[in-house]
Amino acid sequence: MKPSLVKGTRDFGPEQMSKRLFIFDTIRATFKRFGFLPLETPAMENLSTLTGKYGDEGDQLLFKILNSGDFAAGLTADGADQPPLHSKALLPRIAEKGLRYDLTVPFARYVVMNRHALALPFKRYQMQPVWRADRPQKGRYREFYQCDADVVGTDSLLCEAEIVLMVHEVMRNLGIEQFALKVNNRKILTGIAEMIGMPGQEGALAVAIDKLDKIGQDKVLDELRGRGFSEESLTALMPIFSVEGSTDSVLARLKEWLASSETAQRGIAELQETLQLVSQYGLDQPKTELDVTLARGLSYYTGAIFEVKALGVSIGSISGGGRYDNLTSAFGTSERLSGVGISFGVDRIYDVMEELSLFPADAGQGTAVLLVPFDADGRAVALPLLNQLRQADTSAEMYPDLAKVKKMLDYANAKRIPLVVLIGSEEVQTGQLTVKNMLTGVQEKLTADELIAFVTRS
Amino acid sequence: MKPSLVKGTRDFGPEQMSKRLFIFDTIRATFKRFGFLPLETPAMENLSTLTGKYGDEGDQLLFKILNSGDFAAGLTADGADQPPLHSKALLPRIAEKGLRYDLTVPFARYVVMNRHALALPFKRYQMQPVWRADRPQKGRYREFYQCDADVVGTDSLLCEAEIVLMVHEVMRNLGIEQFALKVNNRKILTGIAEMIGMPGQEGALAVAIDKLDKIGQDKVLDELRGRGFSEESLTALMPIFSVEGSTDSVLARLKEWLASSETAQRGIAELQETLQLVSQYGLDQPKTELDVTLARGLSYYTGAIFEVKALGVSIGSISGGGRYDNLTSAFGTSERLSGVGISFGVDRIYDVMEELSLFPADAGQGTAVLLVPFDADGRAVALPLLNQLRQADTSAEMYPDLAKVKKMLDYANAKRIPLVVLIGSEEVQTGQLTVKNMLTGVQEKLTADELIAFVTRS
Repeated sequence: MKPSLVKGTRDFGPEQMSKRLFIFDTIRATFKRFGFLPLETPAMENLSTLTGKYGDEGDQLLFKILNSGDFAAGLTADGADQPPLHSKALLPRIAEKGLRYDLTVPFARYVVMNRHALALPFKRYQMQPVWRADRPQKGRYREFYQCDADVVGTDSLLCEAEIVLMVHEVMRNLGIEQFALKVNNRKILTGIAEMIGMPGQEGALAVAIDKLDKIGQDKVLDELRGRGFSEESLTALMPIFSVEGSTDSVLARLKEWLASSETAQRGIAELQETLQLVSQYGLDQPKTELDVTLARGLSYYTGAIFEVKALGVSIGSISGGGRYDNLTSAFGTSERLSGVGISFGVDRIYDVMEELSLFPADAGQGTAVLLVPFDADGRAVALPLLNQLRQADTSAEMYPDLAKVKKMLDYANAKRIPLVVLIGSEEVQTGQLTVKNMLTGVQEKLTADELIAFVTRS
Repeated sequence: MKPSLVKGTRDFGPEQMSKRLFIFDTIRATFKRFGFLPLETPAMENLSTLTGKYGDEGDQLLFKILNSGDFAAGLTADGADQPPLHSKALLPRIAEKGLRYDLTVPFARYVVMNRHALALPFKRYQMQPVWRADRPQKGRYREFYQCDADVVGTDSLLCEAEIVLMVHEVMRNLGIEQFALKVNNRKILTGIAEMIGMPGQEGALAVAIDKLDKIGQDKVLDELRGRGFSEESLTALMPIFSVEGSTDSVLARLKEWLASSETAQRGIAELQETLQLVSQYGLDQPKTELDVTLARGLSYYTGAIFEVKALGVSIGSISGGGRYDNLTSAFGTSERLSGVGISFGVDRIYDVMEELSLFPADAGQGTAVLLVPFDADGRAVALPLLNQLRQADTSAEMYPDLAKVKKMLDYANAKRIPLVVLIGSEEVQTGQLTVKNMLTGVQEKLTADELIAFVTRS
């Protein structure tokens, strides 16, 4: 009985974990500095909370949890479950809970349940795993983390500007200096749909246009034909593929092209105001790029749309988000709570940082100092030193067995511990400890106090 | 359709989360300083990994995940699932995955699967939620966090000493100064079972004795009678209820009482060596107390047993652990991997700290500074200041709408933001910002630079 992992799931061993923690800590600290507050919701939600929120495909991809106890009791009480047994008929009778599929629906549920205790605008961040019963494949997992920050309860475009700033801060703090932050506004897409004579079809337009990067212009047009877009409408659409250049010049061209669409003009004005606000922060080099073809396929965005890609690697978007009109509408609330949010994908950020060697040298660093006493007398010297090193916030450990020196040094190498302190009888007598730098191989003699001063300085 | 939480699960809103993060961060930092490395395993494990590891009751309490897709397909192919449908017969055909029940079994699976890549001794910590289909009641949840640190691959009692030290450090860093760290050794219980003429019955003895605190001596004896302990054996057992006093004197009495049990003598010697090692670290006031009745009911402990309780509150143990003989034996490995571990219970620690008001004032602190501009000109002053405050690692935000001042101050109060910076036309002209301390109500005039100097100093 050889144990194995559930397909599509992963263990994260010490080295990966240390790097992942660097990413989590960086994102969390940045969220916090921007005034977002932490929230955690349970892994399990009632299926009534989850079902119907992610479309039919999403419902299929929910992991369902079998009811506890004698879940099949009463199954034969009526005829509904007589053989042949159908999954659809059986499901609601044996499972009423499911695993979190994203962080947005649990957030909306939380807001609905705690609405009266919340001060609006409410800014929350949430960093937790989600589960999807997708077919596992390279880069697609059944368990993965999402890191979301949202502000709800205000229409202010300052929130959009804040998100643009926060993306810059997260990237800078992670060390990803080369990135593109594409922005668009859903209202511009709506205006384009109007302009080309397909009003109300911005959803279909968005889904197709969203694939431009992957499948190219011709196939996007084919897909639109398949969705009932006429040749006239596609001809009218052509300018969308050629509006490039500086944000100002693109905005100017869009204003002209979409002059007759009030919605588009509003989208353009929102984008201009957002970028104007961003420019006031005194940011060194804003990485914002207007991309009219950015759609992110999601029908629930109603205003700003964001997408972040790292440059120099062929890894998809590492962050994305946008403004939505009504967070809690799926729960039948009458109050309209508009919001805007951003989500960071830890797995992709990890891949980018690994490929570009951006992790700081100490991100995977565990123990900094290994004490290696040769006998009980050496231990008597090592133990108080161990305590002092830790009090000085240094990760330190002592090899627990009295083994051969080579074995202890092998252990240090395997754990990539940079400093090893050898404590033999000579060291015990003189108080001069032998400190070996495992990277350079250089040894020197230091007293305990000098060692502590050294490690806390470096 | 009013949404609700799954019974036995909880949301953690901003204030609770901030305090919980203080606990998590403190424990994590301490684990790290002691040379433990992080590990995370998936929430879902194969049921073949989980089943049979926690006893029959544990198997019942596993949350099982329904197979994806058409899980009932083929259910009628043979007769095993004809009505009446039995949960036991049905289960293996519709569910092959379950949710993590603790962190030990996934850790053991990880070690078995990665044995050849691991440098022994292997020190890992793991802080993740676990799920149990228990009947929810006060203080018992279906989802809760465990924070475990274990070292496997060595018998050295230094590891026991390290755990004692680490408990002291975690408690000190949390601010829980008043606590008792009870220690015992399973071999002493084994020796007692031998001594009283019930060799091999230390398991039953441990389970009963473990309840001493809760049900008292008489009921413990009744339970033992029920488990087949004779009156003679119970009479012989009596000294266990009266061995109190200093650790040294208890050890001396035990040595004498259990003179004929080699196993007990080994347990006593192990305890003495562990305490001797602990004494060498130079710890101020060790909180270790030998308690011969400490058993923690778990059959898999083979050596040291630990339990931590906070003093001055009637909340159960907040931490516990011990040495086990073979971590990976449940997976049929031939290599014997002895280990010792400790587990911290975040929920109980939270309750202790809340009841004793031990959370530092800034543990629940979110945003430190709220900027309140009165108009677009005020915003132009506020935005670069916002950026500068964050660069100085201060959590700062700006009220996103141009609302009434009262509304903005209410927002600051609701979020417990201690400093509000008012930026009206006068402030824009003079550069002297009005800084209001929301706790004292005191207002003063500061320039942007003075404000930054002030918040980074405080």
